[in-house]
Amino acid sequence: MARLRPKPNSTPDDVAFGINAVGMALATGHAKSLLYWRETQNERVLALVERAREAGLRVEGVDARRLDELTGDGVHQGVLARIRAIEPVDLRRVAAEAGERSLVLLLDRVTDPQNLGAVLRTAVAAGVDAVVLPLRRGALLTPGVHRASAGLSFVAPVAAPQNLAMAIRTLKAANYWVVAAEAGEGSELATAFDWPRRTALVVGSEGEGIAPLLLRESDFRVALPMDPRVESLNVAVATGALAYLWVRQHRPGGPGDGRAGQTPAVG
Amino acid sequence: MARLRPKPNSTPDDVAFGINAVGMALATGHAKSLLYWRETQNERVLALVERAREAGLRVEGVDARRLDELTGDGVHQGVLARIRAIEPVDLRRVAAEAGERSLVLLLDRVTDPQNLGAVLRTAVAAGVDAVVLPLRRGALLTPGVHRASAGLSFVAPVAAPQNLAMAIRTLKAANYWVVAAEAGEGSELATAFDWPRRTALVVGSEGEGIAPLLLRESDFRVALPMDPRVESLNVAVATGALAYLWVRQHRPGGPGDGRAGQTPAVG
Repeated sequence: MARLRPKPNSTPDDVAFGINAVGMALATGHAKSLLYWRETQNERVLALVERAREAGLRVEGVDARRLDELTGDGVHQGVLARIRAIEPVDLRRVAAEAGERSLVLLLDRVTDPQNLGAVLRTAVAAGVDAVVLPLRRGALLTPGVHRASAGLSFVAPVAAPQNLAMAIRTLKAANYWVVAAEAGEGSELATAFDWPRRTALVVGSEGEGIAPLLLRESDFRVALPMDPRVESLNVAVATGALAYLWVRQHRPGGPGDGRAGQTPAVG
Repeated sequence: MARLRPKPNSTPDDVAFGINAVGMALATGHAKSLLYWRETQNERVLALVERAREAGLRVEGVDARRLDELTGDGVHQGVLARIRAIEPVDLRRVAAEAGERSLVLLLDRVTDPQNLGAVLRTAVAAGVDAVVLPLRRGALLTPGVHRASAGLSFVAPVAAPQNLAMAIRTLKAANYWVVAAEAGEGSELATAFDWPRRTALVVGSEGEGIAPLLLRESDFRVALPMDPRVESLNVAVATGALAYLWVRQHRPGGPGDGRAGQTPAVG
């Protein structure tokens, strides 16, 4: 498609904005300093300012325009944090330490910040053991993702291998079955599927789907039953529905149910 | 929160824009006329133009700026349709004609166009028999909803009673059990819940939840198990996960499975 409008100005990548995202950046130790709208009356923003000061961070009140600029006119709610990089988890280690029943997500070409943020939020909610994003997609955890995930991007266990095929090999070696979420030849209905205890669920983008190479590496293909008038579901909606079908079968009590490790608390 | 930026200019309500939304408006007979970017090379847009001409609609090529204005700088992809109003379905009639196993959604205060659009798309996909929106919220099916639903707003069976309490009475009289999607006292885990054959699922907005009046009218309360660090899921994600848990139990083959009525085809 021809571009009808110029792209918004580029904004720094090492920030998080909005109350929830900044709150999570602070709670997880990712915030380095904080800017806030100096005229704010918002009590939640003022509480974040106080918390940042107590943590010994540099805190500065600024004009609304400055926040608009730094966020590319994002919905910053009057608060922004400079953040340190998020460390990826080691997939091999996660697989070794996960319980007998474990769900791992692999995201193929899911790059839209809104969707990626919603998937990360859903993954944390459902107690997924790892979310695998290919490294060469670059720094995917952008300010828009922090915002869209309500800051759950700071707690999601994100693994970043060279590519997804490599991650699939790692997971297969650790007794995961690879389930591709894609309709088509040989696909089973996700609502009638007997989910493996250790499932590595591969999800593609709405437009492009899953790369053929990854489909060939998959042990199963599943699809949610859908009215034929609907081409596809939003990727976060589909991921949520599939993840909770797995949860229903293997961990109906939720993230803490029958799991080996403990969920770390947020300070 | 203080408003930091002015609202975008108001745009007409009787339009749909974007390829999918305009395609659905055309397919369902809701399009009255069509505007397109006169320099477009997009084959899908050109196909819509041809289709509209064949249907005898007025078709006009315009500047990109005109489409930007009419959509409030929306992602119009170079095409826009003037549409006729969408007729709501009669809830009493839907309940009378639905099969023995039926799922109806009631949306309480879900007004964000992005969320409402995603919920409608999900509802059509999952084969929900009706989506109930309170009438007094005004014309909720805005251009942003058409866009976010990928045009499924034109096929979703939307009912628009005076208020949701009235709809609940109608549904109870038709042997639906009312299930409120809300955590809290007395709520059961949605993943361990024995879903009623006829379920009226009440979903609230992320911030506000479900009104106390409606909670009191509910027969059950359910909640998806969630990691305690997650305050809430996106409403479309939660609706999708809950709807497919119902589908798994009662209609695992999808929308056509064991249903009384037929799903009407799109022209």
